[in-house]
Amino acid sequence: MDANSGKDASLTRLLVERALALRHDALPADVRIVARDCLVDWLGCAFAALDEPVSGIVDALAREEGGHGQATVLGRAWRGTTAQAALVNGTMSHALDYDDVNLSVPGHMSAAILPALLALAEQRGRAPADVIAAFVAGYEFACAIGTLVEPAHYANGFHATGTIGCLGAAVACAHLIGLSPVQASHAVGVAATQAAGLKAMFGSMAKPLHAGLASQGGLRAALLAEKGFVSRTDILECRQGYAAVHGQDFHVGLATSPPASGFHILNNLFKFHAACYSTHSTIEAIAALRSAHGIAADQVARIEVVAGEGCSICNIQAPATALEAKFSLRATAAFAMLGIDTGSLRTWERFSDPSVAAMLAKVAVRLVPGMSLSDSTVTILHGADMSSTLTYDCGVPIDDKAAQSEKVFAKFRAVAQPALGEAGVAEVLARMASFDRQPDLRELMRRCAAPGGNP
Amino acid sequence: MDANSGKDASLTRLLVERALALRHDALPADVRIVARDCLVDWLGCAFAALDEPVSGIVDALAREEGGHGQATVLGRAWRGTTAQAALVNGTMSHALDYDDVNLSVPGHMSAAILPALLALAEQRGRAPADVIAAFVAGYEFACAIGTLVEPAHYANGFHATGTIGCLGAAVACAHLIGLSPVQASHAVGVAATQAAGLKAMFGSMAKPLHAGLASQGGLRAALLAEKGFVSRTDILECRQGYAAVHGQDFHVGLATSPPASGFHILNNLFKFHAACYSTHSTIEAIAALRSAHGIAADQVARIEVVAGEGCSICNIQAPATALEAKFSLRATAAFAMLGIDTGSLRTWERFSDPSVAAMLAKVAVRLVPGMSLSDSTVTILHGADMSSTLTYDCGVPIDDKAAQSEKVFAKFRAVAQPALGEAGVAEVLARMASFDRQPDLRELMRRCAAPGGNP
Repeated sequence: MDANSGKDASLTRLLVERALALRHDALPADVRIVARDCLVDWLGCAFAALDEPVSGIVDALAREEGGHGQATVLGRAWRGTTAQAALVNGTMSHALDYDDVNLSVPGHMSAAILPALLALAEQRGRAPADVIAAFVAGYEFACAIGTLVEPAHYANGFHATGTIGCLGAAVACAHLIGLSPVQASHAVGVAATQAAGLKAMFGSMAKPLHAGLASQGGLRAALLAEKGFVSRTDILECRQGYAAVHGQDFHVGLATSPPASGFHILNNLFKFHAACYSTHSTIEAIAALRSAHGIAADQVARIEVVAGEGCSICNIQAPATALEAKFSLRATAAFAMLGIDTGSLRTWERFSDPSVAAMLAKVAVRLVPGMSLSDSTVTILHGADMSSTLTYDCGVPIDDKAAQSEKVFAKFRAVAQPALGEAGVAEVLARMASFDRQPDLRELMRRCAAPGGNP
Repeated sequence: MDANSGKDASLTRLLVERALALRHDALPADVRIVARDCLVDWLGCAFAALDEPVSGIVDALAREEGGHGQATVLGRAWRGTTAQAALVNGTMSHALDYDDVNLSVPGHMSAAILPALLALAEQRGRAPADVIAAFVAGYEFACAIGTLVEPAHYANGFHATGTIGCLGAAVACAHLIGLSPVQASHAVGVAATQAAGLKAMFGSMAKPLHAGLASQGGLRAALLAEKGFVSRTDILECRQGYAAVHGQDFHVGLATSPPASGFHILNNLFKFHAACYSTHSTIEAIAALRSAHGIAADQVARIEVVAGEGCSICNIQAPATALEAKFSLRATAAFAMLGIDTGSLRTWERFSDPSVAAMLAKVAVRLVPGMSLSDSTVTILHGADMSSTLTYDCGVPIDDKAAQSEKVFAKFRAVAQPALGEAGVAEVLARMASFDRQPDLRELMRRCAAPGGNP
């Protein structure tokens, strides 16, 4: 379908109305659980990145501006404006590339939506249940946009975390503050005309910045619309609009149909390896092959990885930094074969260890058309003429959401501990266990600031 | 040339080094004059838009955030952060679409560059001559990018004021604060990955917002780079980089060659009609035909306008608001034929006058391939079988820069008077007459705040 056809003139409005109509008490229990887990995981990823250089730089930029202390800056001793909190917390939460992902975007919707939404909810004194409902609204909207414009949008070079996340953040904020469908459609327009972010920035500080900027941009869009700002109410489908300018795909049928599970958020994928999501299947496949066949590292003659063309984003051949190692199928394969814990944040500096370099030299990656970003087929040549092969798809979400919660909470304990300490971790997780029923978001946020940061 | 070829790997660096090397004392006199006039015109357009709804909305958004009073918000009684001043002043200065333009972008580079640059210079206590040099650096850089990626970039639906202006603002700020070529290249990377703005927003409040966002984004890019932020240093030419993602054109030869006049800024076009620039040739042609042939309004049977396909941006057939009338060749032609002053800001509410509506009904617009955005051929059928035709090109800059200055100063007097009063206008223009030799920018900025706004 041609995005320039001028048909489907009600698409923006339809998707906006659906998102605004979501109510917390009508959400299935699994949806509420996953939404809460997105928040837990997002907080953990942000705390884990507190000392990353990019976090410090963006924090300093915002702090030097001053401003009313409207919202918590995670792990810091100062409070920022909602716009500053969205930028700083958003950048921080994506700095390690350890935050969750949805393949229908494909991108990191929690990192784009939650920073703005939490800051705004804190400022306006909204309840946790309101945050969950607004988050699901923004998340579902963003994923609908993903199904509308992908795969061309992403293939063309746009980093969907930024370019689609911005729209999700706008809708989540619009839901929270009760914008009308017309106002929210104007907010989507403002978000769409701010949509930016180049995939060419993968491996640099700009990638996490995209999440912060998307969140800040979505917040700005909702706040402007609240004040009467007029953009246009049909930006998704209009001539040379958002969809047409960013790509060739325009799947109205997909965008207007919920996924088989009813909610996109049920397909949310949490990361349990601290590297680009498109390396996870390779890591899982190698771990499974090692375990099944008892393959020792010194038996390995060669590792062949076959993945989709889209995995060019994580195919740095000879990583020169820890960050680049996270975008290197060869490095992640070597780590997995050597049994190095790829869930650990401390792992990636080891990319230049002699043992890693030697194993990396045995890894050959072949990217082929037709395979998805989440698929990988790994063949290990080992021993005398032995060959073991496994195909893994990390794009399949965990069915048992209660079991998934346990993994998410465990990850939070591991990654947030350096920033929060054991007592802080326990306190935050205790609140998160009953998040929807907490009367006040501010109690949680208080615990998320550094001591002295949140009165 | 294919932007994905990986060749010209030094393009970003080359253009950045050239821009940073510009020195005030080495600039030709005409270049300094035009740069100063850009500032005069930009200030005037901002003051003229002080009471526009979009100005008030963006002002309120920023003001509610609070923050250190680092920079003047034009015409207001509060001071903002540099980021707030860039956003508010940038949006305001483009709100009436009356600010200058450069066709090699094509877009409004003063509105994108000056808000950030002035705010930063004010905060850091820099001299007016530094501002002029940095402005020229950013302006020339932006125009070089325009020649690199146009016409495809704009034709694809991107509003170059936002998407190219952001890069110009980054380079201007980088020049002002003395970033190294490597730092400035990282700043260009950050600006490029923020580049956004859809032409579909023409006629809405989002169009001027693009200028403010571009300026704020460029400022942010330079400030982040100053703090050590790393993006990448080859974003213009890299695979799926800025050029490749936004369009099909990649003219390295044009981008690396200065224009025939030596400086793009000598081709800067000031607007003396308060409407989309692509309507100006039609207005000028009709005025010239009326005058040459003594055509009275009631003699007109039909007006035929032939313009380039790109003029679809200003071809609203039946404008429903004053803003839409500025993007309507039919309305602007009717105004010109009726002798209504199209330089006046008060004109455009008259789009629905019966006389305007009757004349508009006689105007037929035909858009054809191969004509530039600045060309128009107008044929007036009048009297008994009389036909008069004229082709006009408003893309030809005024040669006599001193004469141009007089027109710019006169326009400032007319449009800034309601905000500044006669005394204020005289005071600002007195300072502007010797701007480069003023020791301190802050004296000027003090006069540009509302009383009480600038201590």
